[in-house]
Amino acid sequence: MIDQNTPADALCAFVAGLRYEQLPVPVVERCEELFLDWIASALAAKGMHPLPQFEAFAHAMGPAGGPAEVLASRGRTSPYFAAWVNAASSHLVEQDDLHNSSVLHPATVVFPAALAAAQDVGASGAEFIAACVAGYEAGIRIGEFLGRSHYRIFHTTATVGTLAAAVAAGHVLKLSPEQMRNAIGSAGTQAAGLWEFLRDAADSKQLHTAHAAASGLAAAYLARGGVSAARRILDGEKGMAAGMSSDADPARLGDRLGSRWALLETSFKFHASCRHTHPAADALQAVMQREGLAHGDIESVLTRVHKGAIDVLGVVDVPTTVHQAKFSMGTVLGLLAVHGDAGLESFRDHALSDPAVAAFRDKVGMTLDDEVDAAYPKRWLGRVEVRTRSGACFQGAIDDPKGDPGNTLSRAELADKARRLAAFSGAASPAEIDALIGRVWQLRTAPRIGALLPSS
Amino acid sequence: MIDQNTPADALCAFVAGLRYEQLPVPVVERCEELFLDWIASALAAKGMHPLPQFEAFAHAMGPAGGPAEVLASRGRTSPYFAAWVNAASSHLVEQDDLHNSSVLHPATVVFPAALAAAQDVGASGAEFIAACVAGYEAGIRIGEFLGRSHYRIFHTTATVGTLAAAVAAGHVLKLSPEQMRNAIGSAGTQAAGLWEFLRDAADSKQLHTAHAAASGLAAAYLARGGVSAARRILDGEKGMAAGMSSDADPARLGDRLGSRWALLETSFKFHASCRHTHPAADALQAVMQREGLAHGDIESVLTRVHKGAIDVLGVVDVPTTVHQAKFSMGTVLGLLAVHGDAGLESFRDHALSDPAVAAFRDKVGMTLDDEVDAAYPKRWLGRVEVRTRSGACFQGAIDDPKGDPGNTLSRAELADKARRLAAFSGAASPAEIDALIGRVWQLRTAPRIGALLPSS
Repeated sequence: MIDQNTPADALCAFVAGLRYEQLPVPVVERCEELFLDWIASALAAKGMHPLPQFEAFAHAMGPAGGPAEVLASRGRTSPYFAAWVNAASSHLVEQDDLHNSSVLHPATVVFPAALAAAQDVGASGAEFIAACVAGYEAGIRIGEFLGRSHYRIFHTTATVGTLAAAVAAGHVLKLSPEQMRNAIGSAGTQAAGLWEFLRDAADSKQLHTAHAAASGLAAAYLARGGVSAARRILDGEKGMAAGMSSDADPARLGDRLGSRWALLETSFKFHASCRHTHPAADALQAVMQREGLAHGDIESVLTRVHKGAIDVLGVVDVPTTVHQAKFSMGTVLGLLAVHGDAGLESFRDHALSDPAVAAFRDKVGMTLDDEVDAAYPKRWLGRVEVRTRSGACFQGAIDDPKGDPGNTLSRAELADKARRLAAFSGAASPAEIDALIGRVWQLRTAPRIGALLPSS
Repeated sequence: MIDQNTPADALCAFVAGLRYEQLPVPVVERCEELFLDWIASALAAKGMHPLPQFEAFAHAMGPAGGPAEVLASRGRTSPYFAAWVNAASSHLVEQDDLHNSSVLHPATVVFPAALAAAQDVGASGAEFIAACVAGYEAGIRIGEFLGRSHYRIFHTTATVGTLAAAVAAGHVLKLSPEQMRNAIGSAGTQAAGLWEFLRDAADSKQLHTAHAAASGLAAAYLARGGVSAARRILDGEKGMAAGMSSDADPARLGDRLGSRWALLETSFKFHASCRHTHPAADALQAVMQREGLAHGDIESVLTRVHKGAIDVLGVVDVPTTVHQAKFSMGTVLGLLAVHGDAGLESFRDHALSDPAVAAFRDKVGMTLDDEVDAAYPKRWLGRVEVRTRSGACFQGAIDDPKGDPGNTLSRAELADKARRLAAFSGAASPAEIDALIGRVWQLRTAPRIGALLPSS
């Protein structure tokens, strides 16, 4: 048994014991919405580099069939490799969700692991939802615990994602509290992922989520099989915080368990870019609409941002790939200013090739803003200063970027986004995605998760 | 192409370009010896917890057949899962090799990855040897680069092992210099493994090597497939040293490439325990022999050790498992004092159950010694102070523990160790292990690696 002397103990006991019946209806509904949004992100990446390389590796190293579904390719394989490929897939087009204060993208690590395990053991929709909520609640609190110093070097979705995936898969597997602690321990000691790849526009972001989901799932299955692990992997003397953080706050691990539902704080992405660009993007759009400005009227845009935005976006100067363009503040603002849209098609068609977007990009600057930085990561404030060719200067400010909990997307908007993402890659027909949307909105009643799409 | 402006660049270019023809004969011979020693370690773990759990997971998640061999169980599967299981297996009985100044166990991560890839592509013995040497040379220098601060929290064999495995597998796959850099980048961003498990006698040490070998192999295959990665994963601003070390020394990465063969500095393990116990163990044996002492004559033993020994061994008080007993200085010295031997059988039969060993254990202390610590990690000095019941005090000192390069094991001794390890678990018959020894001593001439043991 686990004593509850520490916040880490309390978190472990909470997630191991969490039952569907405890969940408030809005949590269940939001979980379904996040799941649909995740499926759409996974489908949108079909055929996009480096996903075919990941699929080829899984095909070479995994079994040719199995209980678990690979969404983009509609193949079936073992839970391990299904989690691995689906996680890579769902973090590729930068349309998956984000939790602000943990700076964690929970969906891309929680759902692939939980789905693969659920398809393996034949879990019900309600069991799947409870497991995913457990993964969100654990992952978000662990991300908050490791803090800003961790995120400065480590890709939290990769590191913490391993633990979130382990908790979700472990919950599907109905691990005991002691087994859950072992799953968390085996996950934490496999947690990895460094931001260094970003300056090279390299393919590691997908490897990070693949690694997190699969290693987390492995941790859960190994725990079920009797493999033990460190009891204090989070806060022990030689644990994650000791090795990978300088501002860890253990109290965050036990923050209002069972009364605060962190899953509800998760943001949906409206623009198809790094979330750090969204507050300024929305603020710029607000100014342009309010003042009736066209992109040609604008001389310069100064975005006032938090430090994390500079850390992540500051390494990108002139983007060389569409994926890297999603981390270029100037490109994102340029797409919105010139084309009124920063969705997947805009990025594909204009981000690298449109001279007007490139010209606008060079007008955009970033500067650290103390007020914005103090609010971060709890709130992601958007502040821009727009100077026009005629010499005017306008301030733009938004406090809740579109998709944030205070400005969330409706089920109709999410369904529309899912249709657009599926159509973008052609991974599912309109009829297929409509049928799937209908099923996900009723997920809680499904006796079994089953296959999401017909086999190819 | 890779410029050679930095030591990291030079290391990458060196390992990508390394050819068998460059290798001095002693390096080739020692590589064969290390390979046999590794095979024996993998075989010795057959049936020992948690290996069956690892085998069951690989069986559930991997294909039921394939080009690569699982040594202990004689199954065949994909290269990924063969590397995963063989790496777990070979680090379990604590008989695998160690490189002193990097505090890296290279064999348990390099050989599983290289063997699986070699069996996949049909590499020759000479190609396999060159790839393994590349893995050793890279891994050892990266371990030295990350330094003592890294090892204080991170299990270097787990973290650096991922890169060593990637280099070895990548060399087998004949990666270009640019692909090799991507393999190193994808490996470094998956590198993980914390010492926290040790106090709980948990099963993570095997998970660490499994994870390292398999993730490193994956990095190599993904690089061959065209997946890119960070160019400066070792020394970049958000790379491994930035996140996981406070005393990294980049110059170590390029240290005498092509003239210093770090593989030759690797130690074989004579005792079946953590290498940190060996210097004191040998020093105690020397005193007891010199002074004609029996264990009953001894009142107390004070071992004078380096800081790393206290970090790793200091968490174990009264061992509760045979594996944990390998990290108990008092138990190791007790086995030697009482039974004259700290081999696998001694540990199995006496480490936990013999009251005389337990009594001796409680007489053993550890203290930090400045001279020993200053020499570490380059040299692992053994210093003990033995007080007898009759009031005498004797000093024991050895400078090269048995198995160290200055006191290495002969081919006859290594063959004998391999026979003992195979017999311990029954994983291979005497005739099978003799045939295998003969083949390994001629490995350089083998046209193909092929299967090491007949299928079950």
